[in-house]
Amino acid sequence: MSRLKVGVVGAGAMGASHVRTLGTAVPSAEIVSVFDMDTARAQEVAGEFGATAADSPEALIAQVDAFVIASPDFTHADLAVAGIEAGTYVLCEKPLAVTAEDAYRVVDAEVAAGRRFVQVGFNRRFDPGFVSLKGHITDGTLGDVKLLHGIHRNASNATSTDDAGLVTGSMIHEFDTFRWLLDDDVTAIRVESPIVEGFRDPQLATIWMKNGQMITAEVYVNAGYGYDVRVEVVGSGGSASLEPRTPVVARVSGASSSAVGSDFVAHFIESYRLELSAWADASLRGEVVGASAFDGFAANVVAEAGVQALRSGERQPVEIPAAPGLYT
Amino acid sequence: MSRLKVGVVGAGAMGASHVRTLGTAVPSAEIVSVFDMDTARAQEVAGEFGATAADSPEALIAQVDAFVIASPDFTHADLAVAGIEAGTYVLCEKPLAVTAEDAYRVVDAEVAAGRRFVQVGFNRRFDPGFVSLKGHITDGTLGDVKLLHGIHRNASNATSTDDAGLVTGSMIHEFDTFRWLLDDDVTAIRVESPIVEGFRDPQLATIWMKNGQMITAEVYVNAGYGYDVRVEVVGSGGSASLEPRTPVVARVSGASSSAVGSDFVAHFIESYRLELSAWADASLRGEVVGASAFDGFAANVVAEAGVQALRSGERQPVEIPAAPGLYT
Amino acid sequence: MSRLKVGVVGAGAMGASHVRTLGTAVPSAEIVSVFDMDTARAQEVAGEFGATAADSPEALIAQVDAFVIASPDFTHADLAVAGIEAGTYVLCEKPLAVTAEDAYRVVDAEVAAGRRFVQVGFNRRFDPGFVSLKGHITDGTLGDVKLLHGIHRNASNATSTDDAGLVTGSMIHEFDTFRWLLDDDVTAIRVESPIVEGFRDPQLATIWMKNGQMITAEVYVNAGYGYDVRVEVVGSGGSASLEPRTPVVARVSGASSSAVGSDFVAHFIESYRLELSAWADASLRGEVVGASAFDGFAANVVAEAGVQALRSGERQPVEIPAAPGLYT
Amino acid sequence: MSRLKVGVVGAGAMGASHVRTLGTAVPSAEIVSVFDMDTARAQEVAGEFGATAADSPEALIAQVDAFVIASPDFTHADLAVAGIEAGTYVLCEKPLAVTAEDAYRVVDAEVAAGRRFVQVGFNRRFDPGFVSLKGHITDGTLGDVKLLHGIHRNASNATSTDDAGLVTGSMIHEFDTFRWLLDDDVTAIRVESPIVEGFRDPQLATIWMKNGQMITAEVYVNAGYGYDVRVEVVGSGGSASLEPRTPVVARVSGASSSAVGSDFVAHFIESYRLELSAWADASLRGEVVGASAFDGFAANVVAEAGVQALRSGERQPVEIPAAPGLYT
Repeated sequence: MSRLKVGVVGAGAMGASHVRTLGTAVPSAEIVSVFDMDTARAQEVAGEFGATAADSPEALIAQVDAFVIASPDFTHADLAVAGIEAGTYVLCEKPLAVTAEDAYRVVDAEVAAGRRFVQVGFNRRFDPGFVSLKGHITDGTLGDVKLLHGIHRNASNATSTDDAGLVTGSMIHEFDTFRWLLDDDVTAIRVESPIVEGFRDPQLATIWMKNGQMITAEVYVNAGYGYDVRVEVVGSGGSASLEPRTPVVARVSGASSSAVGSDFVAHFIESYRLELSAWADASLRGEVVGASAFDGFAANVVAEAGVQALRSGERQPVEIPAAPGLYT
Repeated sequence: MSRLKVGVVGAGAMGASHVRTLGTAVPSAEIVSVFDMDTARAQEVAGEFGATAADSPEALIAQVDAFVIASPDFTHADLAVAGIEAGTYVLCEKPLAVTAEDAYRVVDAEVAAGRRFVQVGFNRRFDPGFVSLKGHITDGTLGDVKLLHGIHRNASNATSTDDAGLVTGSMIHEFDTFRWLLDDDVTAIRVESPIVEGFRDPQLATIWMKNGQMITAEVYVNAGYGYDVRVEVVGSGGSASLEPRTPVVARVSGASSSAVGSDFVAHFIESYRLELSAWADASLRGEVVGASAFDGFAANVVAEAGVQALRSGERQPVEIPAAPGLYT
Repeated sequence: MSRLKVGVVGAGAMGASHVRTLGTAVPSAEIVSVFDMDTARAQEVAGEFGATAADSPEALIAQVDAFVIASPDFTHADLAVAGIEAGTYVLCEKPLAVTAEDAYRVVDAEVAAGRRFVQVGFNRRFDPGFVSLKGHITDGTLGDVKLLHGIHRNASNATSTDDAGLVTGSMIHEFDTFRWLLDDDVTAIRVESPIVEGFRDPQLATIWMKNGQMITAEVYVNAGYGYDVRVEVVGSGGSASLEPRTPVVARVSGASSSAVGSDFVAHFIESYRLELSAWADASLRGEVVGASAFDGFAANVVAEAGVQALRSGERQPVEIPAAPGLYT
Repeated sequence: MSRLKVGVVGAGAMGASHVRTLGTAVPSAEIVSVFDMDTARAQEVAGEFGATAADSPEALIAQVDAFVIASPDFTHADLAVAGIEAGTYVLCEKPLAVTAEDAYRVVDAEVAAGRRFVQVGFNRRFDPGFVSLKGHITDGTLGDVKLLHGIHRNASNATSTDDAGLVTGSMIHEFDTFRWLLDDDVTAIRVESPIVEGFRDPQLATIWMKNGQMITAEVYVNAGYGYDVRVEVVGSGGSASLEPRTPVVARVSGASSSAVGSDFVAHFIESYRLELSAWADASLRGEVVGASAFDGFAANVVAEAGVQALRSGERQPVEIPAAPGLYT
């Protein structure tokens, strides 16, 4: 069967993981090229799977049918646009851009091209736990959904190191998660923190959806004990909680315990595999699945409102413009 | 050993449960009198334990060393004051009063008497789960506490049937719980709801403590599936969650499940036993334990601010005056 | 109301706990006397509740309506017989006797008296978890029961220090538990151990019931990590597992954990309270509840067969004679 | 990169699942051929991934570098031998053969060839939960292992429909699991059942290992409620239990529950993916991983003793001959 020629831009932790997942678990893709500012790093990662290091992102794009963007956030939008203009499929790590305006450039590029090329790497949409949670909503088990409660904790802050970065780099996952779970859009957001000086971590968001649901979301990137992502959905018919647990329970020294890891890539590795696999299969069929460029833009709009809300201490309205016809 | 002569005012579900608990599980107390507007009901409940029905609360007070107030909320403050004036110990069901002003009359009466007589029935302070949760805070396991998340759901609304009643009748438990867990006071509160017309249930409170912690609290009195009270405390060193589970897990018909009851008295029956037992023992020693009249007043102050916050949609400052010397 | 005059023979850990439970949580009983070989110990324990130390078990029996036997196992049967002959109610800690023959002397004494006086302290029959587990059997949820699996682990061996002692002192709880859960009798037993030299701990029993169910039971009195008692019942309609868990879950240092205690008295304290309360109430009514002297004898019969099976390595038939009419 | 040309013999539920897993998740393998007695079925399954249906197993073997045996059990040994003789790598579904004698023909063929070609499909060795459980043994957390308890339940019996079939078709998984977990061999087995007439399901095995550990294993293929595989390992330092749970907990209608599926393929799908992936990668490197032909033979030896034990009701010694040098 024909395979998708794939490149990966960015060979850091996330990029290298994607290369390895593609190489070991996605038969429909063939990695041909890896780019990184650190060429030796790119060669090392590429070499594992018989691919080569590209001299530039542009050179990589010229070689491939589709590519993954896992380079620093500020490069995402430009690379996505370049991919669209080259007619290649793109899986862009979240966030799609650093600003909503930049994200919209990607939307504009797709509209100009007259078709979609970009999937945004909101991997939770492919996580079996999140998919099951959504199933409890869509199958009616929970009745009318009234509330959601989200928790998103990292053991220590790797990338989200300032107030705005925590919103745009970490909490942005929640924004997409809630939009997707409820198939609805955000109308307002408030972001607060018990910390008033220095790095405001944890942060507590309150989010309002168009259909009336309210959501509380805690993001805490220095939670110490491990990586912990949970969501509870509360409706008139009951509640469903995503609360993963390792399959082994140890009873040792006066405690019954299960391990909590600290590596988000390991935690969500199955979702990355399913995401990359779905992306490669869809690209071969000429389709785009998962979160669209418009979804990526919408998450950026919410994030910008969130940053503003954190600064003002006020509830901030969120206005997401109507999606171009391409996305509906 | 000498036993405390005890009366119970109010023989509804809560009062009758207290009579039964005292009679079957509190040896230091002897029930001598029960009062209820429905005399037949009082006789029936009293008769189980060889006590008699009183003609009036005043007649009951004259007969006893100590009494429990489990009559309708609006009668609490007057009865508590009458108890203080008669020099009898009082265990008053929450709330201590319907308004903070009324609650303060009880504080004033104790100050005038020059000593304390009143314990407020914030039973969670005696619940083994809540006590263990507090232990995780005070023993330093959790490091610096940053956040708490509370959930308080009833299967269906029995007593809290309007917006203010939900705050004053149900959420008031959370107010005392958070003050007690953190040994700190509330400085501000916000209360919102996804429901904008009709009975605003569920409600979401955000609470700020003097020491800087933020708290989210959901109260939902028509949650359908059962009675569910949970609290998670999040600190720099980790998190502790109170999440009780029945000891039996059944695997039947494609599900592994444990029962969730709907009766709050059954759920907290052990805490009521320990509360009544501690109260009777303390009364015999001439002491008062548990939540004080001032704690009851403080909870009412927060509740009033909560009701106002729900109406205004704004964050409401909470000012709890300094406690009289009697309470410190 | 009139109260039952109660004595306690034996003021060790178990006896002292019973005195304290009676004194603080069983209003229908009044402790009047405590006996222990160590008189100072008896005085200390008795003094907490205004009772006095007795000079001898006989002197104690003469003073009371009912008494608890919590002295060393070899004294149980004689004391129970003495209680029957004095017409007092008896709650005898397990085992009822060290040998089945001795246990039958208690049965004989009741038969001679023409009525029952003795309850054997198989406290699990009063444990809310075990009661709920039995409910899953009797309400038909599990269909036809086929198998049970029991686990009984102590952190370290306090009293069961030799091969036979482990069966007669610890596993005897399982024998009564299975008879009671299934309302059926044992017909055969096998007991084996992975340990072939020295103290044979853990031990694995296989038990056959008259109605055909098979049971596996592990008893391990040096399990190290804590006290752990679990039972799974497996039927044609599903399975139910008693697997208690503390209500607080801590997430700290890479693990999500709940505490496992090592003190069996603390673990089962609620069952002891309910057992003592039911015993005192029944005694006041002139009745006997819980495990009968015959049940105690039957457990001893199974234990003797178990010890023999452990020695022979063979499956040992168990023949429990028909119960005298008094017990049916 | 070069890919392994792979065939699959047998396109039933298991075989079709393997084809799909290879095709969608194992990039190092390329499916070229599928054989099934039902040619239309083979064509349908093969067609999904651009492969073709073979006319015979021999024709398939001639086309491939490696193949999977997922045809009926009685065909396994002959096909494995044919594969060895053709110099192709083989992944043979369990059991390796219906009898130990037949299984040894496969071992003999490898010895004759002077090298190994065969991996036996004991997929649990690749299951992340089982791997983590083994980690608790090998890292010393549990101290000296004394006991294991296994549970293996199917909702309804698909393939194991007679007494011997339950041992050879289902319990054989436990035999390999215990040998692998403890890195030790079985010395004796006993198999019993509470069912004395008709299909003897459930069955209870007691297993002794060379190093002295004892194991209890329940297999119940008509457990009704779902597919449930659990193992607890008990040592001097504590216990570790494999007890998988779905990540979503629903609170609905008076119960808190998580789903228990009934499809063993779905339950273990991740282990199949990892097994097939490891097999294909190893085959490309000219190596064999996972359970060897000798392990497959050893499991058959235990199974034969188990069947004999079930018939005799006696403990049956198990003698596994020393492995040829090829396997050590």
